[in-house]
Amino acid sequence: MILLDGKKTASDIKEEIALEVSNLKNKGEKTPHLAAIIVGNKGPSITYVNAKVKACERVGFKSTLIRLSEEITEKELLHEIAILNTDLHIDGFIVQLPLPKHIDEQKVLMAVSPDKDVDGFHPTNVGKMALNLPTFISATPFGILELLDRYHIETSGKHAVIIGRSHIVGAPMSILLSQKRKVGNATVTMCHSRTKNLKEITLQADIIVAAIGIPEFLKADMVKDNVTIIDVGITRLVDTSKKSGFRLVGDVDFKEVSKKSAFITPVPGGVGPMTIAMLLKNTLLACTRNK
Amino acid sequence: MILLDGKKTASDIKEEIALEVSNLKNKGEKTPHLAAIIVGNKGPSITYVNAKVKACERVGFKSTLIRLSEEITEKELLHEIAILNTDLHIDGFIVQLPLPKHIDEQKVLMAVSPDKDVDGFHPTNVGKMALNLPTFISATPFGILELLDRYHIETSGKHAVIIGRSHIVGAPMSILLSQKRKVGNATVTMCHSRTKNLKEITLQADIIVAAIGIPEFLKADMVKDNVTIIDVGITRLVDTSKKSGFRLVGDVDFKEVSKKSAFITPVPGGVGPMTIAMLLKNTLLACTRNK
Repeated sequence: MILLDGKKTASDIKEEIALEVSNLKNKGEKTPHLAAIIVGNKGPSITYVNAKVKACERVGFKSTLIRLSEEITEKELLHEIAILNTDLHIDGFIVQLPLPKHIDEQKVLMAVSPDKDVDGFHPTNVGKMALNLPTFISATPFGILELLDRYHIETSGKHAVIIGRSHIVGAPMSILLSQKRKVGNATVTMCHSRTKNLKEITLQADIIVAAIGIPEFLKADMVKDNVTIIDVGITRLVDTSKKSGFRLVGDVDFKEVSKKSAFITPVPGGVGPMTIAMLLKNTLLACTRNK
Repeated sequence: MILLDGKKTASDIKEEIALEVSNLKNKGEKTPHLAAIIVGNKGPSITYVNAKVKACERVGFKSTLIRLSEEITEKELLHEIAILNTDLHIDGFIVQLPLPKHIDEQKVLMAVSPDKDVDGFHPTNVGKMALNLPTFISATPFGILELLDRYHIETSGKHAVIIGRSHIVGAPMSILLSQKRKVGNATVTMCHSRTKNLKEITLQADIIVAAIGIPEFLKADMVKDNVTIIDVGITRLVDTSKKSGFRLVGDVDFKEVSKKSAFITPVPGGVGPMTIAMLLKNTLLACTRNK
């Protein structure tokens, strides 16, 4: 069993990006600049967005954090976005989700210029992804592709089973893995809450992407030997034996499933750390593409 | 075995549209208006586009056919598109494909305003489709959904196998059938040229969508009993016993597969006739939505 070390891989990617940034700077070219909008001050969102800003600094990007009040109107938020859309210094920007309930999230995501939408959430970028055109692939699917690529895991002709059809992980993974691309050409089965014979299907899988958010859902008797497991889930479970009082658990029963796996992502330290690295990669792409 | 009669269903849909158009006219509202651009005068394209224009007339739509020379430059074509994009009389328009080789097809499709893109080919509309947002679903997938719906074929929890990953049929079908929607919620397996154990997979299918363009590819020993078959293929085979000298053949060995099928589309007269009906439906939608 080989552990797909997302932490190490993400760190490698960040080093590569830092090198590119320093090359850009040496050539007197523009330094990539990511902006992040955060509305309100809910704990987890602030933690995420701060991690993104800190990652920018580490690779030599410029970053701008725009903190807006929880009480901001939708119109005011759309105005902030319009400013970023036209600001030539900003290469890409993100709007940290979730937004307060009085704001229409879809409307906000659609207001972001597709050329600066480094989260890859705008329909135009989702459509380009589905059409296999150059675009910003959103961070989690992009990170999974990169992880499979860097560990040289063959996907062509393999049977990949995706569990969970969310718009940010499951659905794009099923599209990407079936496409004619380097990490692609897989036969892909998309499973979800309505799937009746899940175990029958997962037993056929060479690669499983679990993205349903149910802790330790995928058991050892649901997978065949030498499977590759990508675990996207991350749930906090109460654990009094830990100092923190909780432990992080994925959608896969790691202890048992790992015994049958050829490759498996740990939780934490698997897919999670890859997402920020891919956001940086998209920002670098936005900077060099918009030149 | 029940034949999924696309000709009859398309005719029903056109009657419903004609009724809606007459209601719109009675209320003094705008008559839907479809424009079609055709470049050059290649036989099949002209036949297709004429059929679309004629269908418009039959349901009471206005239609405009814009015939452009094979020698038109890309810039000139983009200019024609820009005119249609802003013409308030035109609700929707299509650019008949294929285009001459000196013109970048993708660039042209991206120039069509998503609000008037009744073919549903623009990345923004493809993205909205993938995100399950209101949009124009392109005619062939839209027609297949409609056919399944009108014959009350259960898709929820069923295993649908798509053969062929084209951007206009296979890929969107795999996305749509797996979504949380009326005709959807299926477990979907996307197969293509790199799929290794196709027969093993098709034998599990409750619903098969064959869209690969290989005549009579799907054989009876590849399907289980009571399968539902959607045959998107249409190929001309030489047949000297026919007056025309050819016969039309789908991707399915109809004679043998139909014996095992619960439902099956014939070729011709199955999916084919549905496409124009759904183009009209999208145009009606564009007209009423843009009010």
